Amino acid sequence: MSALTAAVEGAGGSITALDVTASGHQRLQIDVTVAARDTTHADELVAVMRAVPGVVIGKVSDRVFLAHIGGKIAMDGKRPIRNRDDLSLVYTPGVARVSMALAANPEDARRLTIKRNSVAVITDGSAVLGLGNVGPYAALPVMEGKAALFKRFGGIDAWPLCLDTQDTEEIISVVRAVAPGFAGINLEDIAAPRCFEIEARLREQLDIPVFHDDQHGTAIVVLAALLNALRVVDKRLDRVRIVMSGAGAAGTAIIRLLLAAGARDLVVSDIDGVVTTDRPGITGELAWIAAHTNRVDLHGTIREAIVGADVFIGVSAPDVITGEDVSRMAERSIVFALANPDPEVDPAEASRYAAVVATGRSDYPNQINNVLAFPGVFRGLLDAQSKEVTTPMLVAAAHALAGVVKDEELNAAYITPSVFHADVHTAVAAAVRTAAGGPVELPKDTEVE
Amino acid sequence: MSALTAAVEGAGGSITALDVTASGHQRLQIDVTVAARDTTHADELVAVMRAVPGVVIGKVSDRVFLAHIGGKIAMDGKRPIRNRDDLSLVYTPGVARVSMALAANPEDARRLTIKRNSVAVITDGSAVLGLGNVGPYAALPVMEGKAALFKRFGGIDAWPLCLDTQDTEEIISVVRAVAPGFAGINLEDIAAPRCFEIEARLREQLDIPVFHDDQHGTAIVVLAALLNALRVVDKRLDRVRIVMSGAGAAGTAIIRLLLAAGARDLVVSDIDGVVTTDRPGITGELAWIAAHTNRVDLHGTIREAIVGADVFIGVSAPDVITGEDVSRMAERSIVFALANPDPEVDPAEASRYAAVVATGRSDYPNQINNVLAFPGVFRGLLDAQSKEVTTPMLVAAAHALAGVVKDEELNAAYITPSVFHADVHTAVAAAVRTAAGGPVELPKDTEVE
Repeated sequence: MSALTAAVEGAGGSITALDVTASGHQRLQIDVTVAARDTTHADELVAVMRAVPGVVIGKVSDRVFLAHIGGKIAMDGKRPIRNRDDLSLVYTPGVARVSMALAANPEDARRLTIKRNSVAVITDGSAVLGLGNVGPYAALPVMEGKAALFKRFGGIDAWPLCLDTQDTEEIISVVRAVAPGFAGINLEDIAAPRCFEIEARLREQLDIPVFHDDQHGTAIVVLAALLNALRVVDKRLDRVRIVMSGAGAAGTAIIRLLLAAGARDLVVSDIDGVVTTDRPGITGELAWIAAHTNRVDLHGTIREAIVGADVFIGVSAPDVITGEDVSRMAERSIVFALANPDPEVDPAEASRYAAVVATGRSDYPNQINNVLAFPGVFRGLLDAQSKEVTTPMLVAAAHALAGVVKDEELNAAYITPSVFHADVHTAVAAAVRTAAGGPVELPKDTEVE
Repeated sequence: MSALTAAVEGAGGSITALDVTASGHQRLQIDVTVAARDTTHADELVAVMRAVPGVVIGKVSDRVFLAHIGGKIAMDGKRPIRNRDDLSLVYTPGVARVSMALAANPEDARRLTIKRNSVAVITDGSAVLGLGNVGPYAALPVMEGKAALFKRFGGIDAWPLCLDTQDTEEIISVVRAVAPGFAGINLEDIAAPRCFEIEARLREQLDIPVFHDDQHGTAIVVLAALLNALRVVDKRLDRVRIVMSGAGAAGTAIIRLLLAAGARDLVVSDIDGVVTTDRPGITGELAWIAAHTNRVDLHGTIREAIVGADVFIGVSAPDVITGEDVSRMAERSIVFALANPDPEVDPAEASRYAAVVATGRSDYPNQINNVLAFPGVFRGLLDAQSKEVTTPMLVAAAHALAGVVKDEELNAAYITPSVFHADVHTAVAAAVRTAAGGPVELPKDTEVE
C-alpha cells in the first residue's frame, strides 16, 4: 500500500482514503480515493497505480459522475397519502371543488396551487456554460444544478425544461404555453441574438417575470462587484471611464445595467473593434449600444481604447489584452476578466498593475458568480407576485448584493461575498421585493367559497 | 358548547374536534372542526351554529382548500450543498464534464440526469374530471394531485405542465419540445377527438412512451375489473355480449383494449344510438369502432341493444338506462356505470338485477379508479426504459391488476383491489416491465470517460 501512496504522490496526486473491501491470504481489495487536478491527471494517476508491481486496477469511478447518477433533483408530494380520506383531499373528489374555484377565479392559482413558488428553468441548449451548442440532453445536468441552487438559496421549486428546438418562434410558443403553472421564467444558456428576441417577446406576452440569467444575473453581479471595487479605489461610477470587451448576451445586459445605474463614460469593443455609430451595417442591439456609449467617439481596437481607462470589463474571449495593456490604464484601475475558463488577461499579470481584479473562476478571489443573484432575485419577484422584472429591480438587487460586504470587510480581494454568506440571498430578495411593490400577504386560511 | 354540538348534530353534521384557542371571563374562542356532506351542507351547518345564542362565527375554512394552499408538490435537491466543494460537484465547474459527456452520448441522459425517473403530466385543461373545459389554471390542482400520486404509488418524479393552448398542432409541438427531460409523457384530461390525434402523432415522433391516462388508464382498470367480474359470474370474455354506452376518449380506448384482450361480441352505442357501419357520415375513430364491433349488425338504441347482454359498460352520461333495462339483460349480468358523479343507472337499482355492479365513485363498492393503473404502468415503462407503450403492455397490466384479487378474496363486491393494496402497483409495474422487454440494469458506478 505504501508503494501505491508513493506512486500517486510522485505523480502529483494525493490519496484521500483507503478502504479495504475484501481481504485474503494472497491479496487485498482496496477502494482507493484519489484527488486529481482534472480528468487527464486522473488518467495519469490510474496509469501510475497500474504500473505498481502486484497492483491490479478494478473499477475506476469519478465522483462528479457518481454525484450525477439518477439526476440531482426530485419531486415529492407535500402531504402524506395514507388512506382514502387523504386521497380524496389531494385528488378526486375533493380537488374538483378547488378546480371549480379556480375556473371561476384563475388568479387564485397563486394561492391554491404550486404556481406561487414555481419557476421554469428553460434552455434550448445552444450556449451551455462555455461549451457552446451542446443540445438539450447535455444541458440537462446544468439545469438540474440550477434548479437545486434555486431551492438551496431561494427556497424555490424550479423544474428544468430542456427544449428540443432552437427555433425562436417555437421556443416562444412553448414558453408561453407552459407559463400558467409557473410564477416566473428563468431562461438559461440561450445563444445571442436569439435570446434578445425571445426574452423581449415573452415579456410582452406573459404576466409573469421573464429573466435570462446569462444576461441579467451576470449584469447584477458585475454591477455589484463594480460598485464595491469603486469603493475600494474610491472612484465614482458616474465619473469613471469603463471599457468593455464583448457585446454578446451578457455584455449587452451589463452595458444596459451600468447605464441605468449611472455610468456615463462607456466604450464597448467587440471582435471588430470599438463599437461606433458609423460602423457599416450596424443594427439591432449593437446599434443601440453604439448610440448609448462611446460619447467621445473613440475608434480603434480594445488595446487602444483601454489606455487611460479606469475599468476594464471583459465578457468575451481569452487573452484579449495583456498585462502591459493593464499598465496603461489609469491609476488604481479595476479589471474584470470574466471569460471562462480562460480570462481576457492572466489575472496574476493584471494584478501587477490593477488595484482590483475579478474573474469568473472559483480559484481566484472576487468570483463573479450568477449564483449570487438569481435565487434572491426570483425569491423577491415571487414574494411580490410580480408580473414583470424591470431594470430598477435589477439595479436594486445589485446595490443590495454590494451592500452585503460591509465597509470594514471590504478590500481588493473581497468585493463579492460568498454565495454561502447568510445575508446574500435575503438581501437581494428584499431589495427586489421592495422594488417590485412589496410582499403580498398570503392568507393563512381560506373561506368556504 | 353542548348547544353548539346539539345544533350541528341536529342538522346532520358532526363535530370532530373542539380546540379552545383563547379564553376570557366572558368568552371562549374555539376552533371547531365539523364534518359535512358537501359545501351546501357546510354552509347550512355554519348558519345553524351562527343561530345558537351567544355564538359569533369567526373565520370559516374548508380543509380541502386548506390542503391546497401553496400547492401539493415540491421540488428538492437530492444532495446537500453546504460548501464550495458541493457546489462544484452539482454545478460549475464539475457539471461541465457531465455536460460534455452527454453532448458526446445523449443516450446517457437516462443514467446521468433526472430523465430516467421523470414524467411530464400534460393537459390543455379541456376535459378536466367531469368539469369540462375549465382551462389550465383550474387543471393545475388536479395535475398536482396526479403528480403526488405518481410519487406515492410509483416512486416517479412527475411535474405538471398545464398548457395555455388548446390547438392540436401547438400542443404537439410543445410536448415534442419538452420531451428530452422526461422518460414518459402522461397526457391528461384532453378532450376528444383532439386527444386521439395528439397521442398518435406524439407516439410517432417521440422516443419515449406517450400515454393518455383518461383513455388507457381507464381501459386497463375496466378490463381488469371485467376479468374479475367474469370470474365472479363464471363467464368467459370471448363468449359474452358486451354493450357499451359512450364512444368518446375513454370509450374508444376501452373498446380497443377489450378487443385486444379477446372480447368478440361488442355493441357500442353513443348519443345517436348503436354504432353501425351504415351510419351516415361516419369517420375517424367511430368508423373504426363500427368496423370492429356489432358483428350481428344491431340497429337501434342502447335500451334495445342491452336486452340479453351479459355486460353493460357505460362511460357516457347519467341515467342512460334504468333498473328495468338491467332486468332485461342476461342472467348473472355485469353493470359498470362509470359516468361521474352521476352513473348511467342508479347503482342500487342496478344491483337488484345484476350480479356485479361497479361505478367510478368511491362511495360504492368496486370503484373503477385510474390510480390503480397509471403509477405501476409508468414504473414498469421507466424501469424497462421503454421507448413506447403498446397494447400488449396494457393487456398485461390489466391481467396483473386483476390477479391482485385472489380467488379466495374475490366476490361481487370486491373485483378491484384498493389503491392502497401493497401489491397493486408492483404487480402492474412488473407486468408492464416484462411486456416492455424487462428491466434495464443501471450501473452502480460509472467509468472515467
